[in-house]
Amino acid sequence: MMKIKTNEHYSNLKQSYLFSEIAKRVQAYKTAHPDADVIRLGIGDVTLPLPQTVVEAMHRAVDEMGVQETFRGYAPDFGYDFLRQAIAGHYASFGVTVSPEEIFISDGAKSDVGNFVDILGDNTVLIPDPVYPVYLDSNLMSGRTVRFLTGNEENGFLPMPDGLEEMPYVIYLCSPNNPTGALYSLDQLRQWVSFANRTGSLIIYDAAYEAFISGTEPHSVYAVAEARTCAVEICSFSKTAGFTGTRCAWTVVPPELKTVDGVSLQALWGRRQATKFNWVPYIVQRGAEAALSEEGMHECMEHISYYMENAALLADLFRKKGITFFGGVSSPYIWLKCPGGMKSWEFFDYLLNRVQIVGTPGEGFGAAGEGYFRLTSFGSRESTVEAVRRLDALL
Amino acid sequence: MMKIKTNEHYSNLKQSYLFSEIAKRVQAYKTAHPDADVIRLGIGDVTLPLPQTVVEAMHRAVDEMGVQETFRGYAPDFGYDFLRQAIAGHYASFGVTVSPEEIFISDGAKSDVGNFVDILGDNTVLIPDPVYPVYLDSNLMSGRTVRFLTGNEENGFLPMPDGLEEMPYVIYLCSPNNPTGALYSLDQLRQWVSFANRTGSLIIYDAAYEAFISGTEPHSVYAVAEARTCAVEICSFSKTAGFTGTRCAWTVVPPELKTVDGVSLQALWGRRQATKFNWVPYIVQRGAEAALSEEGMHECMEHISYYMENAALLADLFRKKGITFFGGVSSPYIWLKCPGGMKSWEFFDYLLNRVQIVGTPGEGFGAAGEGYFRLTSFGSRESTVEAVRRLDALL
Repeated sequence: MMKIKTNEHYSNLKQSYLFSEIAKRVQAYKTAHPDADVIRLGIGDVTLPLPQTVVEAMHRAVDEMGVQETFRGYAPDFGYDFLRQAIAGHYASFGVTVSPEEIFISDGAKSDVGNFVDILGDNTVLIPDPVYPVYLDSNLMSGRTVRFLTGNEENGFLPMPDGLEEMPYVIYLCSPNNPTGALYSLDQLRQWVSFANRTGSLIIYDAAYEAFISGTEPHSVYAVAEARTCAVEICSFSKTAGFTGTRCAWTVVPPELKTVDGVSLQALWGRRQATKFNWVPYIVQRGAEAALSEEGMHECMEHISYYMENAALLADLFRKKGITFFGGVSSPYIWLKCPGGMKSWEFFDYLLNRVQIVGTPGEGFGAAGEGYFRLTSFGSRESTVEAVRRLDALL
Repeated sequence: MMKIKTNEHYSNLKQSYLFSEIAKRVQAYKTAHPDADVIRLGIGDVTLPLPQTVVEAMHRAVDEMGVQETFRGYAPDFGYDFLRQAIAGHYASFGVTVSPEEIFISDGAKSDVGNFVDILGDNTVLIPDPVYPVYLDSNLMSGRTVRFLTGNEENGFLPMPDGLEEMPYVIYLCSPNNPTGALYSLDQLRQWVSFANRTGSLIIYDAAYEAFISGTEPHSVYAVAEARTCAVEICSFSKTAGFTGTRCAWTVVPPELKTVDGVSLQALWGRRQATKFNWVPYIVQRGAEAALSEEGMHECMEHISYYMENAALLADLFRKKGITFFGGVSSPYIWLKCPGGMKSWEFFDYLLNRVQIVGTPGEGFGAAGEGYFRLTSFGSRESTVEAVRRLDALL
């Protein structure tokens, strides 16, 4: 038996990860009902294939890797220039200026969200509730003090800084929000940025769903210029280009992010990534570059439109039924209030048992998610239409 | 200016990473001598292209990703079964039993070496000197207490546990060693495993260069069966299959690794990876699987033979010159004593200025590396032959 010490903070984590528990219950149902036609609108995974522009670029890159003259070994630690430039160009397409040198390529928004905690000290951390569980878990793993920013019907699941004690925090924001689909307006972002700059706080801004925004809301925290002194931004190809199984993301860390002690966050993150991360495969970086080309983005937006039409079908049904919901516009998620005052796991079992539809219980995203339920628009059209038909009959 | 706290331990790191300093000096030389024919035998990056078996498998996988029916989104957190089984088969090929369920696929040995520190507490850490710098840096980043296991001519750069205080440690071992090329015999590994089991220590065994072993020395720490209660093993496709730019590796964490408090290292590592890491791209996992096929391994071993012939050319020269060196057999590295009592950065400048050859100063791998120098066999045959010619004339 080993006598070494392990990280004691891991015992503060919930034993079972949300999606493992869902998988367990679905498996149990399918074992009991082997012929059931279960429709999965739970996990936020894409289902459409990679855009052809991406496929072609990756084929070319694979060929390059197989030939001596064009083979690529060790890559630049923070990503190839061609990809960092393409991402800077993507920001420019919605009017935001970010330079290639402040973009750090990685294998996923989840990794960056989790690993960014490494370079921070023991701060008070503000985390929206409900929200993507990795913000909380990665902070618990490092023993951080976490306070929640409660989202609810009153604030439209968009908590604001009003009433917070004026002190430095590490603040997580996610817009469009996972799971609620709520998104901050430019004015609301201005208030957060102003609060962060005034209190010496850091905002970690998760923009993984920015490509779904169809209105005039900001795609980036840097739509507020003053964010450069108080915010990093994490974004991903996962949902934009169907990269959930291909893996590419990025984090923007502006050089203006300095502490009063003169520590540069960009330097710390660079050191962390150079030491504890290996760059993204060359083949994948070429695929990601292609996704941001004019043709690639055209294909990506076609896929997003397809998913958003699914979202509209679900939204129309809940509107017709008079069920309160958020999202469904500018987000692949529908966040609905469980009918009849049901609790969220209760509603999960109800939908699974009665109409064989799998969603995600809101409680899995935080205590304030209790009584809510997330459905995704990432299913096929056929299964979404069928889900709407079943829900229409049931609710 | 931000008032949040950052990770104070980062200030204990050396300002400049070894390979950045080398790049800087080489760049300065080339700026001053634009026509110089500089031969790079410094960084341990491979130069031969990916095996054709791997290229073909990745093309097939790219095609699968471009078609609805075979598209793959979220992958199993710890790697696809097909790859974990292929790796278990690789272990079986040299007589070691490892089960697929205890193999965790990752993007690189560097990442795993660095991130494994996350799940450990504040232990006393034993790190060989000289060795790959990431062991030290990732422990310094977490504020760990580090003691060095000194390698030198007397112990053949293979430090043993004799004389160590009997207490629990986290012990890093690397065999074949980077940078010295030294490798532990089965009997020496037995001594380490026995010490670790007796003291309740954990061994983190880096086997990234195992494919270069040509003799009877063990390819895995699990060649000693008792290692299952005291050791994790990290290995990589980088040097075996030319994956430095393609990225795939693995870590073995046996379920027998339990602390006296009943904590399972496998459970902790699984939780860490599921929360803070995204799996390796499907395309890359298919490439890695192909590398371990019979045909793939045949190609890999041809590449390794090519590099080892380069190593033999360098070794023959130093033998002829009466210069003490280690490695050159069962390792792509030659670790030589700087002639004339030169310091290692002095010898670096000497070789760069006099014969335009870039190597790696031993001091960059730890204080005990001072006075030594690393050359790699990863150059082309042509440039290695030319380097030998120049060194023959100079030394």
